[in-house]
Amino acid sequence: MKLKKQERREAIKKEIEKNPFITDLDLSSLFSVSIQTIRLDRTHLNIPELRKRIKSVARKNYESIRSIDGSEIIGDVINVEPDHEATSLINIDEDSVFTRNKIARGHVLFAQANSLCVALIHKPIVLTKESNVTFLKQVKLNDTVRAEAQAVEITNKYFKIKVSSYVKDTLVFRGTFKMYYTSEDEQNG
Amino acid sequence: MKLKKQERREAIKKEIEKNPFITDLDLSSLFSVSIQTIRLDRTHLNIPELRKRIKSVARKNYESIRSIDGSEIIGDVINVEPDHEATSLINIDEDSVFTRNKIARGHVLFAQANSLCVALIHKPIVLTKESNVTFLKQVKLNDTVRAEAQAVEITNKYFKIKVSSYVKDTLVFRGTFKMYYTSEDEQNG
Repeated sequence: MKLKKQERREAIKKEIEKNPFITDLDLSSLFSVSIQTIRLDRTHLNIPELRKRIKSVARKNYESIRSIDGSEIIGDVINVEPDHEATSLINIDEDSVFTRNKIARGHVLFAQANSLCVALIHKPIVLTKESNVTFLKQVKLNDTVRAEAQAVEITNKYFKIKVSSYVKDTLVFRGTFKMYYTSEDEQNG
Repeated sequence: MKLKKQERREAIKKEIEKNPFITDLDLSSLFSVSIQTIRLDRTHLNIPELRKRIKSVARKNYESIRSIDGSEIIGDVINVEPDHEATSLINIDEDSVFTRNKIARGHVLFAQANSLCVALIHKPIVLTKESNVTFLKQVKLNDTVRAEAQAVEITNKYFKIKVSSYVKDTLVFRGTFKMYYTSEDEQNG
């Protein structure tokens, strides 16, 4: 769809409002213009780049996370419903891949999922007890991995949380985490 | 056992030869002297501190590891029998713990075990497929974790490796890792 400049800028604004995590590359193919044009449009619209949009959403979420400091979470939490579900994004950079083949290291996906499970639980102390994980597809340098965590079982001792991680729409990692928690009473006791 | 200085120094030398990974603290209680005395004795004997002894052993081992660069391994590999077993040590520093409670983060123990599994397998490309892990005891700041990996099943597609991690003699972590590998033939194919 090829639009005039002003129409395109309006449409880009709406797209980003609808999905704040859309990339410049996706926008450029959506509107059949170059990435440079998208960047100029964003500058004109005063919309920050994707990384900054993610960080800004993550900062707001950190206020509702109790079990872990925001800076200690591996990835950026873009959504959290305490004790229910949470989503985070991580960008696979040079530090996260094997230098030889540029494939993401398993423990990076594990760390993203594991710290998302901690963030999801609205208790002062949360620790991982058990975990079963499967690496389904190779994740490469510069991929963005979206981890979605959902509490599937809650007892007075632990949460069982399922995590599915995706690169775009492809499931790349799946895990179950059993997380023990300490409530206020026990801390005082 | 309280010995005269020269006897003690001879005995310390023998102890370290027997177990290069013994700490100054362990030596001090073994010989009923202060840590400062042990340090002086080591300096006199020209025996480097524990960290340097570990790094030096690890460097030698990296020559016999094929699947991963030494610098990419989480922890120091102090023993490796390719395709059979391997051992690594990691020191739990401030970066490896939650700031709030100084308990080691789960993904650090996972990363040590996982990269030890990669290091153990003598193939050019090794990737983690599945993993089941259990965190048995809390690991604290400044603990040294010794991970022991052993291949328990080898097929023409994968290795199954069991890892047990200890702080001194206490089992703190246990895991099973299913690792896929690519042999030379497939790489050329």
